[in-house]
Amino acid sequence: MYKYLKNIVGENDYFDDMAHLSAYCYDATRERFEPNAVVFPENEDEVSRILKYCNENKIPITPRGAGSGFTGGALPKNGGIVLAMEKYFNKILEIDKKNMVARVQPAVINKHLQEIVEKEGLFYPPDPASQDYSTIGGNVSENAGGMRAAKYGITKDYVMALRAVLPNGDIIRAGKKTIKDVAGFNIVGILVASEGSLGVITEITLKLLSKPKYKKSAIGIFDTINDAMEAVYQTMASGVTPVAMEFLDNLSIRAVESKFKKGLPADAGAILITQVDGSMKSEIEYQLENIEYQFKQNKCTNFKIAQDEKEENDLWFARRNVSQSINIYGSKKLNEDITVPRAALPELLKKIDEISKKYSVIIPCFGHTGDGNVHTNVMVNGDDKNELDRGYEAITEIFKATIKLGGTLSGEHGIGISKAPFMKLAFSDEEMELFKSIKKAFDPNNILNPGKMGL
Amino acid sequence: MYKYLKNIVGENDYFDDMAHLSAYCYDATRERFEPNAVVFPENEDEVSRILKYCNENKIPITPRGAGSGFTGGALPKNGGIVLAMEKYFNKILEIDKKNMVARVQPAVINKHLQEIVEKEGLFYPPDPASQDYSTIGGNVSENAGGMRAAKYGITKDYVMALRAVLPNGDIIRAGKKTIKDVAGFNIVGILVASEGSLGVITEITLKLLSKPKYKKSAIGIFDTINDAMEAVYQTMASGVTPVAMEFLDNLSIRAVESKFKKGLPADAGAILITQVDGSMKSEIEYQLENIEYQFKQNKCTNFKIAQDEKEENDLWFARRNVSQSINIYGSKKLNEDITVPRAALPELLKKIDEISKKYSVIIPCFGHTGDGNVHTNVMVNGDDKNELDRGYEAITEIFKATIKLGGTLSGEHGIGISKAPFMKLAFSDEEMELFKSIKKAFDPNNILNPGKMGL
Repeated sequence: MYKYLKNIVGENDYFDDMAHLSAYCYDATRERFEPNAVVFPENEDEVSRILKYCNENKIPITPRGAGSGFTGGALPKNGGIVLAMEKYFNKILEIDKKNMVARVQPAVINKHLQEIVEKEGLFYPPDPASQDYSTIGGNVSENAGGMRAAKYGITKDYVMALRAVLPNGDIIRAGKKTIKDVAGFNIVGILVASEGSLGVITEITLKLLSKPKYKKSAIGIFDTINDAMEAVYQTMASGVTPVAMEFLDNLSIRAVESKFKKGLPADAGAILITQVDGSMKSEIEYQLENIEYQFKQNKCTNFKIAQDEKEENDLWFARRNVSQSINIYGSKKLNEDITVPRAALPELLKKIDEISKKYSVIIPCFGHTGDGNVHTNVMVNGDDKNELDRGYEAITEIFKATIKLGGTLSGEHGIGISKAPFMKLAFSDEEMELFKSIKKAFDPNNILNPGKMGL
Repeated sequence: MYKYLKNIVGENDYFDDMAHLSAYCYDATRERFEPNAVVFPENEDEVSRILKYCNENKIPITPRGAGSGFTGGALPKNGGIVLAMEKYFNKILEIDKKNMVARVQPAVINKHLQEIVEKEGLFYPPDPASQDYSTIGGNVSENAGGMRAAKYGITKDYVMALRAVLPNGDIIRAGKKTIKDVAGFNIVGILVASEGSLGVITEITLKLLSKPKYKKSAIGIFDTINDAMEAVYQTMASGVTPVAMEFLDNLSIRAVESKFKKGLPADAGAILITQVDGSMKSEIEYQLENIEYQFKQNKCTNFKIAQDEKEENDLWFARRNVSQSINIYGSKKLNEDITVPRAALPELLKKIDEISKKYSVIIPCFGHTGDGNVHTNVMVNGDDKNELDRGYEAITEIFKATIKLGGTLSGEHGIGISKAPFMKLAFSDEEMELFKSIKKAFDPNNILNPGKMGL
């Protein structure tokens, strides 16, 4: 049944050998689900014929970009076909400077696109931590965020148009190269964040901005995490919108410091690292003055502006390396990307501290607080069953607290399989039924990336 | 059958008398479709019970805000019930300054919300021309734009969360008070712009910005419309993003001038009126200098910055009054709100000029060129059947030209009934089928605002 797909993609783009099946059975979750075959479609027409065949024969099919997702979006949970887009769908089709738009295929790497457009004086803001290897198609499917979301928003804010193949093989276009387009339902809107379960995206048209001329970063040190969290939302509410407003709690600071010795304040309750940008130097100064004022109003004990590129890089080094540093606290990291309304951050972090004590687990926190997005990392000894269980209980309670504060299970990573068990905490039966109806409208035979989002 | 609804809303909120039926049978299209009854639901629970009853009894139901739409979105095309939200769903529920968010009921008037949040130093950018009377619910349902879209985007860019009642009576919430939320399908995304045909929106959570401290406007005069259109996209592509970039062609200028005598340059091919804003005076100057440079590079013959509030108001007076002024060219106005990628504006306007000549109809154009959105107005004598026919033919050709240039049938007004006949110009059979499946997933009995969008 699978071998028929060779007729569509050709001998050289169909694989069912062990090497390929195991190379395409995992992603960043480290869970493994083996597909029955891996196919590399060469163009949209092949994607259409593959989907049509799979639909008629009820073969599960899972589209895959770089496989860098944190929630299993690219895992072939029910077996079947992995539709690997990386080989042929990796071209930047157009940089339209006049309209400030880029048209790309889904397997273009985020960072690569950023670099190319910046050479033209343009700017593609979404910068997920995975930007060096994650694909634009994956970013769109998971609606990826990043550090610059505080000022510039997330992937969905940049997707103007899409081409996609539906499970029945139909090829559709949605959206235009225009800011305004209100003809027909907002198909772009529903395909973004759909985790590859409604259609296979074959082309993406992205809005670009002009590249800001100046940027500058600063760090603020706080005695308590509460002070830092108050400073975050009060800064944003004061009318200044920094590009990024990142935080590290004390555990995160210590972890980076113990590993890299960068002279971070190991006793600080928290640090905030922020960046501003603009088209004039005075704009930068104005923003930094305001941030310093707001920070100091909230008991910032030390505020330091990076004076040159080296200082700037040192400052961001801590933030970029925190995720890999915190493994000093446990062999297994249960990391979540909860997000709350910014003003609920002080309350959320207080709650996490309580949960940490209640379950005797260490929970270093860091993240994109400018948009209320906190990466919580429950660190446990993976071999200690009891500790692992306590870890999972802690996570359940963190989710409950997040939702109670008006927050969401996921700010960036999506649901996939990892967070599927928690969907019922966040959504009512009626809301889950609606998700199911939408899934069914696009994919009545449930062939496209089945078993995700708890559907 | 209809009278049962009295049991839900009470005697005082159910009407089937002639006065009510004719008061709720029209909108800004001036077309008339009489409902069988008008009901005023008092709360979400009543909305739910009404929808459930209508769904079980297959009664068409059309939600209505202010009835100010240009494409018939609020018209009860198939009769049935008008669900008039204006009486009870008109409250601003919360201005959350800490999170910079407003929570409102759907019948809140756009301008009223703007004024309230501006008093708090906040800013709600979407400003459709109907802002004095159109409702936020209507704005969300049609995904309304406005003059400030060039810099600040459109309604969908501000909707963070919704509460809605589905045709089966289910009450759902979608989205959060957070910039990031990637749990479950993007229901907010698909409800925005759905023209009241997928669910009845009962509560809207909107993102607010901080109010810019300074703003300034300027006018540029051009000998030819082509020069002006080149200036528009080259300004935007140069990295300056004005709040608004509005244009009037020669016919529009003359119309305003003949009516109001404001000293506009009656011989000019076109004028561009632009506004910039920012948090510092130097930012304003920087932007105006750049705009002046780009304008003059494109043969702007006169560039003038408004020096005080009076000059500023005079400048915008022309733009605001153009729509009512152009009726000097004909008793009937066939106005459309086509939108193209900005760099296609020179080509589009050239094409419209050709069409005008070909069909011997006068087509004054003006609009939001900063985002490629042109209001084309085919002016005809409504009593002259032949001229009217030529007018409609001209419109069809304008739509074809727009789509060929990568544009859309509607940038702001939606499809409703007015543009439904043109959907097939813009969408393939597969795309129309997808719209139908989505409609069916939400509304299997086709009771909610049936007969719109060509579905």
